[in-house]
Amino acid sequence: MLSRPPVDEKRAAMRVVIVGGGFGGLALARRLRRAPLEVVLLDRRNFHLFQPLLYQVATGGLSAASVCTPLRYVFRGAKNVHVWLAKAVGLDPRARRLQLADGEIAYDLLVVAAGSRPHFFGHSPWAQVALPLKTVEDAAAIRSRVLAAFEQAEREHDPEQLRALMTFAIVGGGPTGVELAGALAEVARYTLRREFRRIEPSLARILLLEMAARILPGMPPTLSARAERTLRRLGVEVLTNTQVVEVSPAGLRVRRGVLEEELACGNVLWAAGVEAVPFVRAVARATGAATDRWGRILVNPDLTVPGFPEIFVLGDAAATRDENGQLLPAVAPVAVQQGRYVSQLIRARLRGKPHPPFRYRDWGYLATVGRHEAVGTLFGWKLWGWPAWLLWALVHLAKIVGFANRLLVLLQWAWAYLTFGRTARVMVEWQPAPSSEGNS
Amino acid sequence: MLSRPPVDEKRAAMRVVIVGGGFGGLALARRLRRAPLEVVLLDRRNFHLFQPLLYQVATGGLSAASVCTPLRYVFRGAKNVHVWLAKAVGLDPRARRLQLADGEIAYDLLVVAAGSRPHFFGHSPWAQVALPLKTVEDAAAIRSRVLAAFEQAEREHDPEQLRALMTFAIVGGGPTGVELAGALAEVARYTLRREFRRIEPSLARILLLEMAARILPGMPPTLSARAERTLRRLGVEVLTNTQVVEVSPAGLRVRRGVLEEELACGNVLWAAGVEAVPFVRAVARATGAATDRWGRILVNPDLTVPGFPEIFVLGDAAATRDENGQLLPAVAPVAVQQGRYVSQLIRARLRGKPHPPFRYRDWGYLATVGRHEAVGTLFGWKLWGWPAWLLWALVHLAKIVGFANRLLVLLQWAWAYLTFGRTARVMVEWQPAPSSEGNS
Repeated sequence: MLSRPPVDEKRAAMRVVIVGGGFGGLALARRLRRAPLEVVLLDRRNFHLFQPLLYQVATGGLSAASVCTPLRYVFRGAKNVHVWLAKAVGLDPRARRLQLADGEIAYDLLVVAAGSRPHFFGHSPWAQVALPLKTVEDAAAIRSRVLAAFEQAEREHDPEQLRALMTFAIVGGGPTGVELAGALAEVARYTLRREFRRIEPSLARILLLEMAARILPGMPPTLSARAERTLRRLGVEVLTNTQVVEVSPAGLRVRRGVLEEELACGNVLWAAGVEAVPFVRAVARATGAATDRWGRILVNPDLTVPGFPEIFVLGDAAATRDENGQLLPAVAPVAVQQGRYVSQLIRARLRGKPHPPFRYRDWGYLATVGRHEAVGTLFGWKLWGWPAWLLWALVHLAKIVGFANRLLVLLQWAWAYLTFGRTARVMVEWQPAPSSEGNS
Repeated sequence: MLSRPPVDEKRAAMRVVIVGGGFGGLALARRLRRAPLEVVLLDRRNFHLFQPLLYQVATGGLSAASVCTPLRYVFRGAKNVHVWLAKAVGLDPRARRLQLADGEIAYDLLVVAAGSRPHFFGHSPWAQVALPLKTVEDAAAIRSRVLAAFEQAEREHDPEQLRALMTFAIVGGGPTGVELAGALAEVARYTLRREFRRIEPSLARILLLEMAARILPGMPPTLSARAERTLRRLGVEVLTNTQVVEVSPAGLRVRRGVLEEELACGNVLWAAGVEAVPFVRAVARATGAATDRWGRILVNPDLTVPGFPEIFVLGDAAATRDENGQLLPAVAPVAVQQGRYVSQLIRARLRGKPHPPFRYRDWGYLATVGRHEAVGTLFGWKLWGWPAWLLWALVHLAKIVGFANRLLVLLQWAWAYLTFGRTARVMVEWQPAPSSEGNS
């Protein structure tokens, strides 16, 4: 029904087109409100997703709506910011035109903040079996899968099938995997207690697999050790030095040292890393930019594409080096700081002023381990236990976009903590009747 | 992965199998807690859905989680109630076995509370275009469709396409259609104001089509007239004596009197009636029971199937006559009263006592018209305006299952009324990137 619109010509003011309304794109667009510019913010979805709390949606602790803020709502008062539901597919850097799935748009400045997608290390068939955690649909799919596994187990008579159904493997021992493992253990051990008559959910086997020698390899070793102890106490089996070599509906085959081992498992959750989305690769091809091994564009110190000072790349789409030459990780604080930096750079350019290169300030990072504890660093200090968790909660509450969302999250957290309950347990399935037509 | 379990043999106690955890099945199961019975409650989903508020999920006023209560949670303390995620497909009434999609279960008493599904008057292809409102997925699909229509319109250059995108037709002028029309008008006129730069959402055309001579034909004529006046004031075009004869992606063809007319419309919402689900038809075939024209089983005055005193049918699945010989409507209060009645009848049978036939007590019915008003009857009195709305809100808050849900709904209502905002506006789509790959 949708006809192909003509090329969108620019208006008089300078136009900045931002591809992506995630952490980076949103931070940038917010700082460009009331600037003497036309800002067009494009996203394939109509909302900004607060990804750090997605693992709670996946384990039923929060509703999906809590972590999504409609982009139009954020910018409703900003007359110079236009929000478009659109998908960017390509680029013509000479003509300064961005190609969309259903049209084109001309730009003066382009900001690629298109984010990332889950990375299966080249084994795309694994995506049919393993469930990633990047979008709200991913979170809902994981939640459905986990609940369906217990529901199927309740009616399963074959002991082997039962064991496989009640085995959950999380691949990836970084913060996402650790948070998911801890939350899943809480659901199995506490939330679902008393609700089944045949199975004992607390007997579920939860495995956390990490290729490196320790989980949370980006944190100091003592914090990795603390997190591992907490996870074991929650009943999670932590398998380090473990690489996944095959994923199938029957389970995983893993390599530990020189030995390979089969793990029968009906539920594989994928938290093992991200790579650039296809649009970012298209930008790299169109501009001849080099990329790192995850497809992220290697940018100049001022976040521009080499040879194209009017094109910026930030967030998960960019490979940025810090002052030690190390690549910055694909995390939210980096994207937010880069978004703000680019807004300052653009404003400086408008005034004809120079601007220093981007410099990331690492305030630290926190990850929860279960519902009471967290580990992390803050300004260089190591934190753990209950105080770390409280800090994590306050920081994340403060950073959620939108007062309504903040209140909604706070209330759901309060409820969960008062009642041990996890209220958001709707099993939303894309196929009809997740009951009995086989595995999802 | 799921093997076929063996036939589930009965335990010592008498077993009641209830198919369906909706209003009827839930009311019955709750009243059978602590009875000297084994109760097995089957549902294709793991939650009870509070359907009267589904139209608010469809228009972004409530999150999906607010209207869903996990069945296991409701019965966690009731040791004699087993909740199974299963789909009933057939029946062997001689052997007293219920056939499931993945097994069988033996019963002493069977209660068919399987509900209903949307009715397209025999035109099943219309289901590809028109969006019904019966499940949470339906509500999410409507919400996505409505938001997507505005998003696409924002970028549409062709005037005809634009008009079609901003035209919404609701088929069915009963309570569901009226509530949907009023809520949709509020969203277009107030909630989305200021958020678009090219289109003016309040110029959206909202049509409510009803085959009968007036909307809300089940209510007194003066209330129908009041509701119509309120809807017109909200900008809804009410077309009575209008029958839909064709539904296509381009719009509707309707018949008014002897004239037929084309209505170009990109968004068709279906609120035009329900029919029995396939399992209920299977029960009718297996027992030789007669059905009404919507497939509902014509039951005895005690809600049993003629010839089968151990099989009960209640709620939307049953065609029950009141004392005037009229068929009772497929509404929640009927199902709830019938569920409670069957629990009393079963308990009377256990004690060897007789029990009178079912008698429906019509306390009245309320339907909202926009966010401030409602119309309806209570104990025979007619109510309208703001007091009716307040009563509607209190009654529905009281009847939601689960304190968490009640609180969640109350808070979302308070928020919406304070801010005119509708917070639950996530556009959840089952296909990737609802942006630009054509209409959903």
